[in-house]
Amino acid sequence: MSAEWSFTRIVEALPPTVPFVPPEALERQRGRTLRLRVGANESNFGISPKAREAMVRAVDQVHWYNDPEGYELRTTLARSIGVDFEEIVLGAGIDELLGLLVRLFAAPGDAVVTSLGAYPTFNFHVEGYGAVLHKIPYRDDREDLPALLAKVREIRPKLVYVANPDNPMGTWQQADALRSFIDELPSGSVLLLDEAYIDFAPEEALLPLDLERGQVVRLRTFSKAHGMAGARIGYGLAQREVVAALDKVRNHFGVNRVAQTGALASLGDQEFVCSVVAQVEEGKKQYAALAAELGLGMVPSATNFVALDTGSGERARRLMQMLLAEDVFVRMPGVVPLDRCIRLTVGPAAERQAIAEVLRRVVPEVA
Amino acid sequence: MSAEWSFTRIVEALPPTVPFVPPEALERQRGRTLRLRVGANESNFGISPKAREAMVRAVDQVHWYNDPEGYELRTTLARSIGVDFEEIVLGAGIDELLGLLVRLFAAPGDAVVTSLGAYPTFNFHVEGYGAVLHKIPYRDDREDLPALLAKVREIRPKLVYVANPDNPMGTWQQADALRSFIDELPSGSVLLLDEAYIDFAPEEALLPLDLERGQVVRLRTFSKAHGMAGARIGYGLAQREVVAALDKVRNHFGVNRVAQTGALASLGDQEFVCSVVAQVEEGKKQYAALAAELGLGMVPSATNFVALDTGSGERARRLMQMLLAEDVFVRMPGVVPLDRCIRLTVGPAAERQAIAEVLRRVVPEVA
Repeated sequence: MSAEWSFTRIVEALPPTVPFVPPEALERQRGRTLRLRVGANESNFGISPKAREAMVRAVDQVHWYNDPEGYELRTTLARSIGVDFEEIVLGAGIDELLGLLVRLFAAPGDAVVTSLGAYPTFNFHVEGYGAVLHKIPYRDDREDLPALLAKVREIRPKLVYVANPDNPMGTWQQADALRSFIDELPSGSVLLLDEAYIDFAPEEALLPLDLERGQVVRLRTFSKAHGMAGARIGYGLAQREVVAALDKVRNHFGVNRVAQTGALASLGDQEFVCSVVAQVEEGKKQYAALAAELGLGMVPSATNFVALDTGSGERARRLMQMLLAEDVFVRMPGVVPLDRCIRLTVGPAAERQAIAEVLRRVVPEVA
Repeated sequence: MSAEWSFTRIVEALPPTVPFVPPEALERQRGRTLRLRVGANESNFGISPKAREAMVRAVDQVHWYNDPEGYELRTTLARSIGVDFEEIVLGAGIDELLGLLVRLFAAPGDAVVTSLGAYPTFNFHVEGYGAVLHKIPYRDDREDLPALLAKVREIRPKLVYVANPDNPMGTWQQADALRSFIDELPSGSVLLLDEAYIDFAPEEALLPLDLERGQVVRLRTFSKAHGMAGARIGYGLAQREVVAALDKVRNHFGVNRVAQTGALASLGDQEFVCSVVAQVEEGKKQYAALAAELGLGMVPSATNFVALDTGSGERARRLMQMLLAEDVFVRMPGVVPLDRCIRLTVGPAAERQAIAEVLRRVVPEVA
């Protein structure tokens, strides 16, 4: 700290950290371009042709600020989802909304509950606002709802985070179990339900929309099935009082024009999204067969990625390094026992074939 | 507040407010499309053809996340500005950076100084984080550096905000005066210097870069001269300790891929930016002549807009309403005595001609 200024006490206490090392940084470190980019669950199916056309048109209007109320997109979302306009908030990805929601509910020192090994960016924001994280271990590669609930009922945190389907493991919760979880939440505890991968989830995982219930905020994104990760646009579904409170603190002009226009067009191309989801399904079957062939496990997945089970953290790390040496970008969960897996995004057939070729070569060397 | 949850004390205390009503909301309220959009200092010269080409290319890669380190753009900015890579932070517009900087320096209850009538989004963030605003009146339509400094030396705020050139009045500070201001800052007070309009400023307003001095953060944007308001990209120049601290709290994936790519290309097209600046200069001369013809004053401007002086707040409000009735979107400063002006963005010749036609018709009715 310089004598000339001082940061807030909370900022001073934060360690230097970033939620993720991006593939671009790996490329710079290694001085080589990555050949296959399947580590960040980006959709290599790309975007809908309708979204592309709309986004190119939006570039021609980009000298105008975006609509801070996101009127057109929120109106269309409201109609297609079956909620009110006032129950939707847009954000520059779920990441931005997570930060805002932590700020909204958790004061410095307040308790927040998540799972050990769950989405690091949520933790980044909780710590960034000086709240206190409590982490519950996964159970059988799934977020452990009963254990989370027990902790919540014990310490009554301001927030509890659950991803359904889960990232990084790809597993999912039954809607009934989530419903019971919500019913048992003590007063004052809000569930942040991260549904980034909901487009890939089976019917049984789909929690009905019920915004009467004020203790749930659901978070969704155009980054995954819609293929718009680099555009930065997601949304939250919540009671209107929560949306109104976010309006008091959010960066009103934060969701750019190209993203809003593209998301609107992509919503109008359900055929494209269905085709992506179908191809991902097909790809997951292929990866399951490949895993069996190579003597690896595969965690059942309700997302656009698969977690291949190498049996040990050491083997997973070695496999990840060998893949990187082949210019293949993958990621792996950071904590025991999840770290026995490596995570592959499921992309188009040609990409899967290229991945299979590399895995057939390197996996035997790891085993 | 519901019984089921509670917001933080700071959020509970905030009034429902937004920094700006967007032109889109005016269109929705009135059920009519605006014909001329000259209220938000958007550059109706559009973007560089090189930026356009790059942004369209970026749309084809938008399924990939943006580089959270903004490596290419920051490297190019560093070279062109003459600072180090580690002294640049990117943000989703200056707006996002203002919020982050308030969060970095001002804890709840801390004092912050700005000018009465200056940029409302800064105030929005200060209040949003529970810090306490002190507002110093303008003097002769300029932010009053001596009065600001006296207040700063009296109360030693964490932050003091100055825009150079100024928004909403378009006036500017001499670089020497700013340098003295900075030299006199007490320990612990940081100057946020908003340079959104710096591309339009005269030589005498250009404060040399001197990042050794830790008490200044300079904020710039691609929204104005580069015409990329809807893309949401700006940057801050600060000592590396400040940039490193921002890395502990910022939304790392917040600056979208299309914006980063477009900004990089736009930096490589100085010819375009120079042409915009030259046309704005020409336009300001025309508006000065028009103001004289219509018996209005015009505040000297170092920006891409002009403040036309109607002589009274009542006349300015009436003129703004009459322009809106003609489907012309303008804004005006909110506080006395600045509110005797209406603010027009300076656009291409055809637009200026259309504005002149309307003004010649309505101004006589107001006077």
